[in-house]
Amino acid sequence: MNFSLIEKYLISFLQEETYKINFNGGILGLSGGIDSSLVAVLAKKAFGDNFLAVMMPSSYSSDEHIKDAKELCKQFNINYTIKPIDNLLNAYKNEMENDKLRIANFSARARMIILYDLSQKHKKLVLGTSNKSELLLGYSTIFGDIASAINPIGDLYKTEVFEFSRHLNINKNIINKPPSADLWENQSDEEDLGFSYKEIDIFLKAMIEEELNDNELIKKGFDKNIINSLSSRVYTNQFKRALPLIAKIREKTIGIDFLMARDIKR
Amino acid sequence: MNFSLIEKYLISFLQEETYKINFNGGILGLSGGIDSSLVAVLAKKAFGDNFLAVMMPSSYSSDEHIKDAKELCKQFNINYTIKPIDNLLNAYKNEMENDKLRIANFSARARMIILYDLSQKHKKLVLGTSNKSELLLGYSTIFGDIASAINPIGDLYKTEVFEFSRHLNINKNIINKPPSADLWENQSDEEDLGFSYKEIDIFLKAMIEEELNDNELIKKGFDKNIINSLSSRVYTNQFKRALPLIAKIREKTIGIDFLMARDIKR
Repeated sequence: MNFSLIEKYLISFLQEETYKINFNGGILGLSGGIDSSLVAVLAKKAFGDNFLAVMMPSSYSSDEHIKDAKELCKQFNINYTIKPIDNLLNAYKNEMENDKLRIANFSARARMIILYDLSQKHKKLVLGTSNKSELLLGYSTIFGDIASAINPIGDLYKTEVFEFSRHLNINKNIINKPPSADLWENQSDEEDLGFSYKEIDIFLKAMIEEELNDNELIKKGFDKNIINSLSSRVYTNQFKRALPLIAKIREKTIGIDFLMARDIKR
Repeated sequence: MNFSLIEKYLISFLQEETYKINFNGGILGLSGGIDSSLVAVLAKKAFGDNFLAVMMPSSYSSDEHIKDAKELCKQFNINYTIKPIDNLLNAYKNEMENDKLRIANFSARARMIILYDLSQKHKKLVLGTSNKSELLLGYSTIFGDIASAINPIGDLYKTEVFEFSRHLNINKNIINKPPSADLWENQSDEEDLGFSYKEIDIFLKAMIEEELNDNELIKKGFDKNIINSLSSRVYTNQFKRALPLIAKIREKTIGIDFLMARDIKR
């Protein structure tokens, strides 16, 4: 991929989509992981001092990630603020019966709330940091980390996020550590998903970009195990990539046949 | 409108959309307002005891609404639970500098978090309660009260919600009180919006269902003031009815040309 060209394109994407609706810049949640780091560097290039990174650690996050996030901000001279989510977590924790997944989803949504509140305060657009592999597999929280106004990397596979980050000289600590949603201790994306991102992306490109069906995927040499496991994730998580379903009653139903570009002007 | 037919249709809509993805019933936030009351009655008819109403008052909500919500549950024998949002609100309140709109958006999103957490706990689908007038005008919080899995009344205008509620014998207290998002004391939808729902719905039907342009609307006798005010709301809030915008890089981009039905099966 021509990352110099993609860099230019994504910087002007960020600027155009933001300025035309009269926001002054962007804001995002910076975890210290590679996806948010990549978007942060692009946003800094697009908005300069009008970009704000928000670190939102909890007692479940690893100190290493926050350290990496701070170093990234130093390296690229990025404005940041730290808003821990522990107060919100503690206010609801007793309800969640120590259920790891419920706490993880709550945490992702608490971060969305803080980001959207600061977005309103600072008139900065919330930038999405989900990559295409994660979005396709639905490895994310609906109305949590998926929630954003615009997402510059949602069409880049995870392995491309790695390459692009190298191209942008992002610190090797961030590039080399094992991908983790960091929602509990020592969480590993690749363990959760059952395959490496390298395997995942080769498969997803065949399934999605080339539109191969199961038989064609088998002919291409993919194992039944990976086909079943990853296709199921793509299909069962489609709801995370769709608007709420409205029962159709009239001529023009929102999300069905009342459709307009998000930036439509009168 | 043939509300007996619409009632049957919406009950089977709720059942089909829920059972086919292996959820056992529905859950929603019951404010005591007319929209959530209407959906609650439909959901009770669809799911019986597998429907759960969640009341989530805060120190900003009026006691009258909670009283009405409880009476509705009694009248229709609806299971409910009460989860106040004050703990969450207090955990973040200092950040919001007494900004009424920020507190309102936070409250709507805090309710979403609780509903989605309980949805996961009870395996019940989150039912949307936004009507079409509200959705079109964007009189709602993105990733807050708009957030749901399925919405049975999103294609009904507010004035139709009133008529339908009468048809279903919902308590007159609920039908007759002035519509309010109840996000601060004595809030009134119609004051916020500048027009009565009767005026709003006549206008929206002409603009949306009949697809009339500004000139045609003027010819139909609509005042320039209502045309400008309400059309602006419809257009500038389109982002609340759209998925996050992803920068297009590949053949198949999520939300642009990678589109599947939300209930697609392998």
